Amino acid sequence: MGPTSTLSTGSVGVVETRYLDLPAPLPLDCGRELHPVRVAYETYGTLSPARDNAILVCHALSGDAHAAGVAKTPPEVGTRDGFGADQRDGVPGNPPDAKALGWWDGMIGPGKAFDTDRFFVIATNLLGGCRGTTGPSSIDPATGRAYGSDFPVITVADMVRCERAFLDVLGIQRLAAVAGGSLGGMQALEWAVRYPDEVDAVVAIAATHALHPQGLAWNAIARESILRDPAWQGGHYHGTGRAPEAGMGVARMVGHITYLSAPALADRFGRRLQFADDVRYTISEPEFEVESYLRHQADSFVRRFDANTYLYTSRALTYFDLAREHGGGSLARALESVRARTLLIAFSSDWLYPPVASREIERALRAAGKPVECQVIDAPYGHDCFLLEEARQTPIIRRFLAGQRPAERRS
Amino acid sequence: MGPTSTLSTGSVGVVETRYLDLPAPLPLDCGRELHPVRVAYETYGTLSPARDNAILVCHALSGDAHAAGVAKTPPEVGTRDGFGADQRDGVPGNPPDAKALGWWDGMIGPGKAFDTDRFFVIATNLLGGCRGTTGPSSIDPATGRAYGSDFPVITVADMVRCERAFLDVLGIQRLAAVAGGSLGGMQALEWAVRYPDEVDAVVAIAATHALHPQGLAWNAIARESILRDPAWQGGHYHGTGRAPEAGMGVARMVGHITYLSAPALADRFGRRLQFADDVRYTISEPEFEVESYLRHQADSFVRRFDANTYLYTSRALTYFDLAREHGGGSLARALESVRARTLLIAFSSDWLYPPVASREIERALRAAGKPVECQVIDAPYGHDCFLLEEARQTPIIRRFLAGQRPAERRS
Repeated sequence: MGPTSTLSTGSVGVVETRYLDLPAPLPLDCGRELHPVRVAYETYGTLSPARDNAILVCHALSGDAHAAGVAKTPPEVGTRDGFGADQRDGVPGNPPDAKALGWWDGMIGPGKAFDTDRFFVIATNLLGGCRGTTGPSSIDPATGRAYGSDFPVITVADMVRCERAFLDVLGIQRLAAVAGGSLGGMQALEWAVRYPDEVDAVVAIAATHALHPQGLAWNAIARESILRDPAWQGGHYHGTGRAPEAGMGVARMVGHITYLSAPALADRFGRRLQFADDVRYTISEPEFEVESYLRHQADSFVRRFDANTYLYTSRALTYFDLAREHGGGSLARALESVRARTLLIAFSSDWLYPPVASREIERALRAAGKPVECQVIDAPYGHDCFLLEEARQTPIIRRFLAGQRPAERRS
Repeated sequence: MGPTSTLSTGSVGVVETRYLDLPAPLPLDCGRELHPVRVAYETYGTLSPARDNAILVCHALSGDAHAAGVAKTPPEVGTRDGFGADQRDGVPGNPPDAKALGWWDGMIGPGKAFDTDRFFVIATNLLGGCRGTTGPSSIDPATGRAYGSDFPVITVADMVRCERAFLDVLGIQRLAAVAGGSLGGMQALEWAVRYPDEVDAVVAIAATHALHPQGLAWNAIARESILRDPAWQGGHYHGTGRAPEAGMGVARMVGHITYLSAPALADRFGRRLQFADDVRYTISEPEFEVESYLRHQADSFVRRFDANTYLYTSRALTYFDLAREHGGGSLARALESVRARTLLIAFSSDWLYPPVASREIERALRAAGKPVECQVIDAPYGHDCFLLEEARQTPIIRRFLAGQRPAERRS
């Protein structure tokens, strides 16, 4: 299952994640400051002498700075999100070293959507992450132990402040574009509002200006699952030899199903039984293929991800609310300051970040006279489409970044 | 939120749950036999001399035998399912003793959908239950301790076999109708196929002939949450002073959200914050009203329900597959034997047991020349509609039970 890319494009090649320490404490929405802050990042392509071709790519909940190319030091386990990830990880037809590929490798590279022949693409691990950027598993200088739940609660705005401070160090004042899907798209929108004079274009894919209440609920359930695991130990499990793997496994299962569409699940698994033609009468073991798949997803995720980072990142994306944070409750007012051109992409089957959310942003921007384009791609794979539907996103993004308007459609 | 009943009808009054021991071992699909088997039940109305007016009402995952009236001995905590339950439990406008009301009190009584002036209505707690009928928390005669996970894995067919054996003891050979919503509707459908000559009519509400793969996934996640709780202790937590309350709380949260529709959640909670006008920056405490509501739902559920019963019942409803069990994979063949008239009711916003499932049953029955009526009620509350939309179900069910066809519709 899943679409096949028909692009014949190049790879950015072998890359290595680098690390940079911010020179000053980072102020946060919660009122605290964070110091030191290290940022993990990768870059692809070449920064122009005028420094005007930089694109910042922001990742989703479980991503990292390795967005494209082949990792010089492959991570111990995969580093990718959701269903798209599985397609690359060990599915027939994929190269055996697919784990070392960046999470958006199909979108970043020579001739690709984010064309490294033209743009200097930068990917960072987000603030609070567990893949090199400072987060709850980092050492708290005050105690010499991992922060754990003493890490300050962060917001999407804090993530963006961190990215801004990081780009300052790189000497990049202005972005040709900021782009991302899901939580990455939230960061892109936050950039457009927070730093309107420093962003030329925004590409927000499968994103929303504020997660809907059912999405809040799914995230709350995932967090509860971790919080209620006794191995969480109040958030201070680092160094104890135990981690809330049981709870995070369930959290991942919940997330995973919300990233997919019901028809995609039906198409891929149906009600096929795991063994032979009949049930085995067990309450504790998988009977259906979809049950076994979920268990596999959970087990592989807990080996590569930090539970506290999951909690903090999930919390940040539930807080995100452009209207509340910037518009006194009004989305229109929140978007008044935007100066970037905006491209919104949504997917018809995405019920977690549904097209209606992108349409709301489009309407508000348009009402304010801002240049905006909203494309809803008809695709069956749910929220994970932003990782899967590379071939159909590519021409839209390439044209948008080239500054062209969409072709006239007869409708 | 929620519809208001406009019926002025009576109550069956004060009722008491009774218990009956089956005279013989109960054979099960898994190959084992269960003995002894006690069945908790209530009856409302009067059995006719000809014994031809009995209606069996089957409950859903977390229900019990107390379907109507006011419990003589109110249960320690509420005994009802989902959103509908909450409406009765302590929501303004409901009487303070609402907890003692049967879970389908709006549907069973004098002048109601299941009219006790005419019918003798019987409700039992299902096999594997924890409200009086033999289940995993019952004493295993082989050990003198609670069965726990030594309880045999049961199926919907086993539940129906148990109901059949129970009715034998009551001297009821034939049912005027068997009715239920959700898992209760699955039991009703199983009755029609398994005992075709002993059922005159079937009322299957918000039911399906086989849960779709996303539904399998939600149930698997709920069970995993319990199984992964260390307090589950391999299923033998009875008498240890610990129970998998953390895991079952999360399971209940997952279930709860699947019983509701996204618009219903948005309508009831929106993104309203729990405290004041701003967030408090916490990862472990509820910030949004919907988060607090979920925690409340989980906490009240774990006080009244047995985790193993949850596991067994969830497993049974995932196994249920009329086509696989009775038709060699063909739903049409499975339904060939049906002789009952069938009424199917589905709700437009129910995404767990969606209308399309009822339509599939309708089509298969109609193709086989069986009398069937399928009504899809346009209502926003999701799967819980079967507990909430009493006023709109009532005329449909009353007319159907009276043997009348629906009025001609212009369409």
